[in-house]
Amino acid sequence: MNNDDLFLARAIELAQNGSELGEGGPFGAVIVSDGKIIAESWNQVVVSRDPTAHAEIMAIRQACAAVDRFHLPKSTLYTSSEPCPMCLSAAYWAKIERIVFANTRAEAAAIGFCDDQLYSELNRHFSARSIIMEHHPMPNGLLPMQQWANNPQRTPY
Amino acid sequence: MNNDDLFLARAIELAQNGSELGEGGPFGAVIVSDGKIIAESWNQVVVSRDPTAHAEIMAIRQACAAVDRFHLPKSTLYTSSEPCPMCLSAAYWAKIERIVFANTRAEAAAIGFCDDQLYSELNRHFSARSIIMEHHPMPNGLLPMQQWANNPQRTPY
Repeated sequence: MNNDDLFLARAIELAQNGSELGEGGPFGAVIVSDGKIIAESWNQVVVSRDPTAHAEIMAIRQACAAVDRFHLPKSTLYTSSEPCPMCLSAAYWAKIERIVFANTRAEAAAIGFCDDQLYSELNRHFSARSIIMEHHPMPNGLLPMQQWANNPQRTPY
Repeated sequence: MNNDDLFLARAIELAQNGSELGEGGPFGAVIVSDGKIIAESWNQVVVSRDPTAHAEIMAIRQACAAVDRFHLPKSTLYTSSEPCPMCLSAAYWAKIERIVFANTRAEAAAIGFCDDQLYSELNRHFSARSIIMEHHPMPNGLLPMQQWANNPQRTPY
């Protein structure tokens, strides 16, 4: 086994353990930096009653806590399945360098997960989505953004 | 002011307070159920060193903790700015009914936030994204998904 195989095998093992315990869906993830695992997690939506507790989100939060930074450059996310758009976006925000996944979104769809559909939803204009979305501009709405942009002490992320 | 104005004004106030304190970007959100605010939050990426700590994600997690469920049907997410794809996907996973936002992703792009670009990235084939992505099927990769699908005690979410 090469390293990619080893780390993916661990992600799959975490997926299996977590779902056997009833903690959530059958998904696991590890984050590797400098050849070492710095975070490993699994889907905990059910046990934590947290819809954002996907394996990848949990692993990213854990890895950032471990390094005490909100970016994870030069790290790889190994995940048992192709990330949903929430988790993929989180990987971008975290500046993860590389993602390796075993199963596809089509394979997840075959057992009832809507990841594939969610990618299509996100690609629609906000007025054409299944979730009701309304743009409601406010008189002072832009003020916090303008103040942030003009603050020399701001921390971009 | 009608209720939408009131709840959006609160989201904008949270955006301003949070970013003035240096806790993160200038973004705030509240979640309303049965006419009452059940969660309010703001971007805390910087203070918590957590790239997933966007206002909407934090508000969804807080609202789910408040009701002790991983779904928020019949609830509305008020957010100072159009959600990024991470936060919008989280709203879908949480089964939020309606989203009302004041500022647009173009207005966020104007002060340096990449939300708009992220929507484009997600719409590309995985091999054409700026993040390196590799599909690496594993011999036993589908096993956890098959076991989950065949488990009559599973909890869909």
